[in-house]
Amino acid sequence: MKFLDKKVTDIKIAYIGGGSRGWAWGLMSDLVSVDDISGEVALYDIDYEAACKNEIIGNKFNNAEGAKTVWNYKATKTITEALTGADFVIISILPGTFDEMHSDVHTPEKYGIYQPVGDSTGPGGIVRAMRTIPMYEYIAENIKETCPNAWVINYTNPMTLCVKTLFDVFPGIKAFGCCHEVFGTQKLLAKILDEECGIKNVERDKIKVNPIAVNHFTWLTQAKYNDIDLYPIYKKYCEEHPDGVDKGADNNWMNSAFACADKVKFDLFKKYGYIAAAGDRHLAEFCEGKWYLESPERVKEMRFALTTVDFRKKQLKARLEKCEKLVSGEKEVKIELTGEEGVNQIRALLGLHDLVTNVNIPNYGQIPNLPLGAVVETNAIFRSDSLDPVFAGPIPTEIYPLVSRVCAEQEAVYKAISKRDVDAIFMAFANDPLVTCSLDDSKKLFKEMVENTKEYLDMFDLSNL
Amino acid sequence: MKFLDKKVTDIKIAYIGGGSRGWAWGLMSDLVSVDDISGEVALYDIDYEAACKNEIIGNKFNNAEGAKTVWNYKATKTITEALTGADFVIISILPGTFDEMHSDVHTPEKYGIYQPVGDSTGPGGIVRAMRTIPMYEYIAENIKETCPNAWVINYTNPMTLCVKTLFDVFPGIKAFGCCHEVFGTQKLLAKILDEECGIKNVERDKIKVNPIAVNHFTWLTQAKYNDIDLYPIYKKYCEEHPDGVDKGADNNWMNSAFACADKVKFDLFKKYGYIAAAGDRHLAEFCEGKWYLESPERVKEMRFALTTVDFRKKQLKARLEKCEKLVSGEKEVKIELTGEEGVNQIRALLGLHDLVTNVNIPNYGQIPNLPLGAVVETNAIFRSDSLDPVFAGPIPTEIYPLVSRVCAEQEAVYKAISKRDVDAIFMAFANDPLVTCSLDDSKKLFKEMVENTKEYLDMFDLSNL
Amino acid sequence: MKFLDKKVTDIKIAYIGGGSRGWAWGLMSDLVSVDDISGEVALYDIDYEAACKNEIIGNKFNNAEGAKTVWNYKATKTITEALTGADFVIISILPGTFDEMHSDVHTPEKYGIYQPVGDSTGPGGIVRAMRTIPMYEYIAENIKETCPNAWVINYTNPMTLCVKTLFDVFPGIKAFGCCHEVFGTQKLLAKILDEECGIKNVERDKIKVNPIAVNHFTWLTQAKYNDIDLYPIYKKYCEEHPDGVDKGADNNWMNSAFACADKVKFDLFKKYGYIAAAGDRHLAEFCEGKWYLESPERVKEMRFALTTVDFRKKQLKARLEKCEKLVSGEKEVKIELTGEEGVNQIRALLGLHDLVTNVNIPNYGQIPNLPLGAVVETNAIFRSDSLDPVFAGPIPTEIYPLVSRVCAEQEAVYKAISKRDVDAIFMAFANDPLVTCSLDDSKKLFKEMVENTKEYLDMFDLSNL
Amino acid sequence: MKFLDKKVTDIKIAYIGGGSRGWAWGLMSDLVSVDDISGEVALYDIDYEAACKNEIIGNKFNNAEGAKTVWNYKATKTITEALTGADFVIISILPGTFDEMHSDVHTPEKYGIYQPVGDSTGPGGIVRAMRTIPMYEYIAENIKETCPNAWVINYTNPMTLCVKTLFDVFPGIKAFGCCHEVFGTQKLLAKILDEECGIKNVERDKIKVNPIAVNHFTWLTQAKYNDIDLYPIYKKYCEEHPDGVDKGADNNWMNSAFACADKVKFDLFKKYGYIAAAGDRHLAEFCEGKWYLESPERVKEMRFALTTVDFRKKQLKARLEKCEKLVSGEKEVKIELTGEEGVNQIRALLGLHDLVTNVNIPNYGQIPNLPLGAVVETNAIFRSDSLDPVFAGPIPTEIYPLVSRVCAEQEAVYKAISKRDVDAIFMAFANDPLVTCSLDDSKKLFKEMVENTKEYLDMFDLSNL
Repeated sequence: MKFLDKKVTDIKIAYIGGGSRGWAWGLMSDLVSVDDISGEVALYDIDYEAACKNEIIGNKFNNAEGAKTVWNYKATKTITEALTGADFVIISILPGTFDEMHSDVHTPEKYGIYQPVGDSTGPGGIVRAMRTIPMYEYIAENIKETCPNAWVINYTNPMTLCVKTLFDVFPGIKAFGCCHEVFGTQKLLAKILDEECGIKNVERDKIKVNPIAVNHFTWLTQAKYNDIDLYPIYKKYCEEHPDGVDKGADNNWMNSAFACADKVKFDLFKKYGYIAAAGDRHLAEFCEGKWYLESPERVKEMRFALTTVDFRKKQLKARLEKCEKLVSGEKEVKIELTGEEGVNQIRALLGLHDLVTNVNIPNYGQIPNLPLGAVVETNAIFRSDSLDPVFAGPIPTEIYPLVSRVCAEQEAVYKAISKRDVDAIFMAFANDPLVTCSLDDSKKLFKEMVENTKEYLDMFDLSNL
Repeated sequence: MKFLDKKVTDIKIAYIGGGSRGWAWGLMSDLVSVDDISGEVALYDIDYEAACKNEIIGNKFNNAEGAKTVWNYKATKTITEALTGADFVIISILPGTFDEMHSDVHTPEKYGIYQPVGDSTGPGGIVRAMRTIPMYEYIAENIKETCPNAWVINYTNPMTLCVKTLFDVFPGIKAFGCCHEVFGTQKLLAKILDEECGIKNVERDKIKVNPIAVNHFTWLTQAKYNDIDLYPIYKKYCEEHPDGVDKGADNNWMNSAFACADKVKFDLFKKYGYIAAAGDRHLAEFCEGKWYLESPERVKEMRFALTTVDFRKKQLKARLEKCEKLVSGEKEVKIELTGEEGVNQIRALLGLHDLVTNVNIPNYGQIPNLPLGAVVETNAIFRSDSLDPVFAGPIPTEIYPLVSRVCAEQEAVYKAISKRDVDAIFMAFANDPLVTCSLDDSKKLFKEMVENTKEYLDMFDLSNL
Repeated sequence: MKFLDKKVTDIKIAYIGGGSRGWAWGLMSDLVSVDDISGEVALYDIDYEAACKNEIIGNKFNNAEGAKTVWNYKATKTITEALTGADFVIISILPGTFDEMHSDVHTPEKYGIYQPVGDSTGPGGIVRAMRTIPMYEYIAENIKETCPNAWVINYTNPMTLCVKTLFDVFPGIKAFGCCHEVFGTQKLLAKILDEECGIKNVERDKIKVNPIAVNHFTWLTQAKYNDIDLYPIYKKYCEEHPDGVDKGADNNWMNSAFACADKVKFDLFKKYGYIAAAGDRHLAEFCEGKWYLESPERVKEMRFALTTVDFRKKQLKARLEKCEKLVSGEKEVKIELTGEEGVNQIRALLGLHDLVTNVNIPNYGQIPNLPLGAVVETNAIFRSDSLDPVFAGPIPTEIYPLVSRVCAEQEAVYKAISKRDVDAIFMAFANDPLVTCSLDDSKKLFKEMVENTKEYLDMFDLSNL
Repeated sequence: MKFLDKKVTDIKIAYIGGGSRGWAWGLMSDLVSVDDISGEVALYDIDYEAACKNEIIGNKFNNAEGAKTVWNYKATKTITEALTGADFVIISILPGTFDEMHSDVHTPEKYGIYQPVGDSTGPGGIVRAMRTIPMYEYIAENIKETCPNAWVINYTNPMTLCVKTLFDVFPGIKAFGCCHEVFGTQKLLAKILDEECGIKNVERDKIKVNPIAVNHFTWLTQAKYNDIDLYPIYKKYCEEHPDGVDKGADNNWMNSAFACADKVKFDLFKKYGYIAAAGDRHLAEFCEGKWYLESPERVKEMRFALTTVDFRKKQLKARLEKCEKLVSGEKEVKIELTGEEGVNQIRALLGLHDLVTNVNIPNYGQIPNLPLGAVVETNAIFRSDSLDPVFAGPIPTEIYPLVSRVCAEQEAVYKAISKRDVDAIFMAFANDPLVTCSLDDSKKLFKEMVENTKEYLDMFDLSNL
């Protein structure tokens, strides 16, 4: 890297999962839209061809309308080649295919278990983690070997378990996990500020929050705008909108198919008095199965969606077609900002500005009443080559029962998978609050889900199931 | 007090709730059965006549067969008179009458909520706490005023909340709460040692355990006999007895009507891999309502009992009759040891021996992953005028979700009642895992239960319910 | 306050100690030099006349060259009048007069105890604290009463004990202590960056540091510029400059008479491997008396100064003269920026920008191996109406012996003064590492220092000394 | 092992350092004097011949007057042979010879550094640790390999660092360190109880204490006898005996040559208000060098002794002669109880009784304000195959400056030696409070001490010193 006056050139970014048709294009848009960083992006993917196509697409972005800098994209055949000399590593992979995801999300429905996402917790999240943790062990070892000083940004779910793996395998890693769910809640608060107080066009990052908890089950213990405490305003709004809110289209295109009415969020506020700060689809998965996910009818009543994997497959097909057109030039690349903070985080780590935002990293004490070492989500300060968590304070008494349970469950799942202890994995599975069926049915379900995805599970001894 | 060679005389014990027809007679038996302590017992009760009758009965114990020492009993009209000069204070009261208890236990049944005990948690425990905490505030203030250096032993439920109140009102208090539930599990382990290993007649206190958690939801992280680890033996026994165990009569007469088959305990072991150490009736109340208490049929299937308050009323009637006969001399007092450790604890605090046993006191760090200040149950060492908790270690990952939730819920209930904040009390009530009905029904239920017991709730503003 | 677009008007600041001829004028300069905040400053001082003069001077600043906004200054006769309606409170007082300070600093010299500052620790700091803590109790009570929601900024020494008092008396206070000592070390690092790496004109706040410890005995566990780790560079520089560094004039006019050669700082680095981040005059006072303060010769050898109170008196005289001229108009007011961050902190608390800087507040866990509740210095984030400490991590093993001692000593001094326990104060005094004389001589010294300043100590019972 | 009714036979004890002429004979006395345990003692020593002689002597103890049980002694040529099948491992070795110890203790005297013991801290303790830690790494690895379930009892100094090594190398080890220094203070308290209150013949273990801190720098935060608080009595006694106390002969023969007048202890009480609970020779070594060890005259004034290594050599010579006579039968073996608790601890771990006594183990939180993982001394409960620390509470504010420093210094020394980092070892050496000479002289001293003992230091790279 070269540090010039207010500019850094010759940066190398390694992108693991660089064949993606979604996140990758978003990152390309974001990278080319700032004027003070430039360099090279090495694209590594187990689908090498996909990475090659993204190499072509990425390089086209340098000439897109609005491009302010230049990034050279290069597909690599090996992970080592991608990581060699990397200053930053971005990881965003799909662990398995949509077929495995189909099993994760839909197999449990036979037993009355409905999952709107199925990638973080619940039966889907746990079986997905069985595939993902070994992959992350491999990635962590490669980073340790090849670029131990690089900053590593994770976007893959299950977020908590991916980050846990990185730090467990390579304790000296400079890694963190990024998630935009809090941003959605900041936007909701901006909307409420408009409706309740007539204050218009507040940007989401002007809503100052103190996020605290475990990824996708995040809570805000504080929300301020200037000198306005948003808590009483939020309370009033919840009371006035018992059936949630129609937010209209979300500006973040990646979320457009996943909108919710925040009715779960408002119900949790009524119950606990704290603002939950993730999408309703995620929040519902961390609560007792009977609360919001008892049946498709209950989901409808709560006004969120059970995103099907068929939908995702259809979406993928459209993206594949778009990909071909972008490569051939039939369609032009177009800069569309994601609203994610990855590029700003990189700029802050390079010393170009200070940034306070939420991240997922191990608990060093930033949440004093959750276990040390568990991966938690709080604010952190990004500055020159350093990332320091903000002291978020203890989980409040009222929601501590919920949050400490979730945190402990993730720890139990990690321990079991990390040891390849199939009995312990099943015990965690059977104890998951979404797994409301009997122990015998839980066993049947677990066996079926594992069988469905066994191609990715050869590091586990499944013979005694 | 006078300390002679291996003997202490002139001890003064104040007994709050000294009109009791149960615990009081048990204590009289225990006190007169040791030969190295003697003195005076002041009996205070809001039912002064009952205390007077116990004065007569207590003094008769000095002449019972097997009596080894002398204690002078004296009913007092005021709490101050009882506490003046007290070296020890024993508190064992009934907060309200069996009519209030009837409402606590049975009103929720209308909403499908079944409680086998209803005195520690759940809707019954919470409404009982509304009556009890203000009484304990009064007692704590009187102790602070009159005998701040006395050792205070609590037997009343809700144990956790009573002890919390004592320390919150008078932080310098030398108090602890006693509960015999762990003893029952030690006896079960001794029975298993007999059946599985042929080791007979092991006394319960030779089973060395490390209890850890919150009262009535206690777990053993360690159970040893000599060099034998009882964990694998317990595991084998659970697997061989999926339907629990027939223990025959419990030797502790106070429990005879409350026997269980330990099937809940074995199920929890199967689920979590740890030994739960309270009676099944208590354990079930701290789990999700649907698990063991969904219906009377489920309770029957799990082989424990829903103790009715009618049964307790009948039992009381028999005791009242017995009381009259004891006073008149128609029936002779008879020493029947309780198996409780109160008298041995007193002897240890007097320096007559060292004693390690379980107690309920605030968490100073003895359980490092539960909140500081929350009342927890662990072992402690009783020695000359000192009580030091044993460092029990963290709650294990597997059961941490359950235990941290329970601990946090008790804290939330205490905070709400202590502030006389009826809205917050209701929120804690509605969030209780036993309260499985809708929020609207929860509100109706809460109102009804509060209405039923309002005679004892005049310190709360109930007008906005 | 009125929040306009990127501007806040109608702010009220209460300035306790508003008659000052130094800090006050600096603040006036800083306030008038930003264009996005305006309002009123109430000046309260026990010397009402001095406050009146500053009212005149302050209002003149609005017309000074470079003024960008308007602040109305108003002297008040009572503290209540100043605090009423205040949004911010600034406290910067002299506890007693220079005569008391003379005793603090110079009386110990008779016993071979030399203090370059004498306001934070050592015999001078402790006796000064006896005067100051009761004053801060009074101020804290008034804030609690009159403007409990105001943000309170303290500049007075002993910093640690002043902040401790504010939080102890009014736990809900929104207060913090500011100190510029870390800035000096950032400037030193910028200078070294120039000399060692040829990187010129780096502004001090581009040096990203992680300060950790107790005020005036602060250490940096991390110092970065862009991707450059300043630790190895500092090490090299220390080795090359065993006799310290000639920094030339400090740009901060307030420090001009107090320059040092950083030789103490370099010696501490050689000994412990960590960068100490306060002026040498302060650092020396927290080490063993024999290390750097054994004699005036030793001080000279270490190339720092024993600032005499006579010098301060002379300096004051000059300022008083300047004051008269400013009031009369004989001399014009001139904006001279202080380099302090107070105004920027105020702007951040108003939501005008985010700011990360070092503050003194109670330890909530931001330094996990120092006692909770002790006042510590770390970074914090200032945002809309919120101040959150950065998690600074534990004090490193190598310097933990020093820092934990200092932290514990401040706690012991606070406890003793707060209880008005003169015996305990003396014990802390006698145990201070600067008090190298015998216990008998310590007693004599303490009596003399207390006698010298007794006019300000009438809340202590000194009769048994 | 065979567990009979109240008896355990077929125990195997491995004694590392089993050729000792002191501790070994004491242990033989203690073992044969209880009637409920018996078995085999394997004696391993790098001096195999010495072990063989102790085999002969040990077996003679079975026929000594007062012998109540039988232990078979057997010298082994390898450590593996000794450890195979061991239920208990006792470690009591001399790391190096008295020649190395001579250098440890006396070389620093050239630089005005006087050490009464020189085995725990200070220059002597640090250089001794350089020899000892690698030996303990070897022992820990062998235990891990050969008898991972055995209980391991350490008696060697530096106690803290030996125990730290055992747990660091083999985290699952069941180990603890024993030290009798607290017993001496209990005896002193019993003596004071006699003199001040006329209570005679109180056995030392009836004085109930709460020891807290780091080995050889232990403090009692509580001392009770029956209901008597010994603190005010101790205070009075200290005031009445400013020059310490003549205790007469200590009953523990192992200490007879090392008596002190407790004047250091009383001085520490005067300064800090807490009872220090180790011999003055040890206590003095953990304080600033100037306090009690400035010169031989100061030592004399404080009425303790600088034990010379010549004395120890002379003592050894006498023991060697005694050894020959015992082997040949010229002198008969005689049971002389040591007053140590090792045998009682073994009996408690076998389930024969409960025992509360002080041990050295890692800090799991039993002292919440010392670093986790540092080896600390507190009470613990010994029961069937389990050892649980008592929660000792935080180090009191007044002595926290001293104790946290000592604890951190030991951690720094361990880290440096464990990494074989000679620079870091020297830094810890130079920073030790006993090393009062200049940095240059410290370097010379360190080189000389290392040179003197280099035969035992070949695992360190000393070439750059």
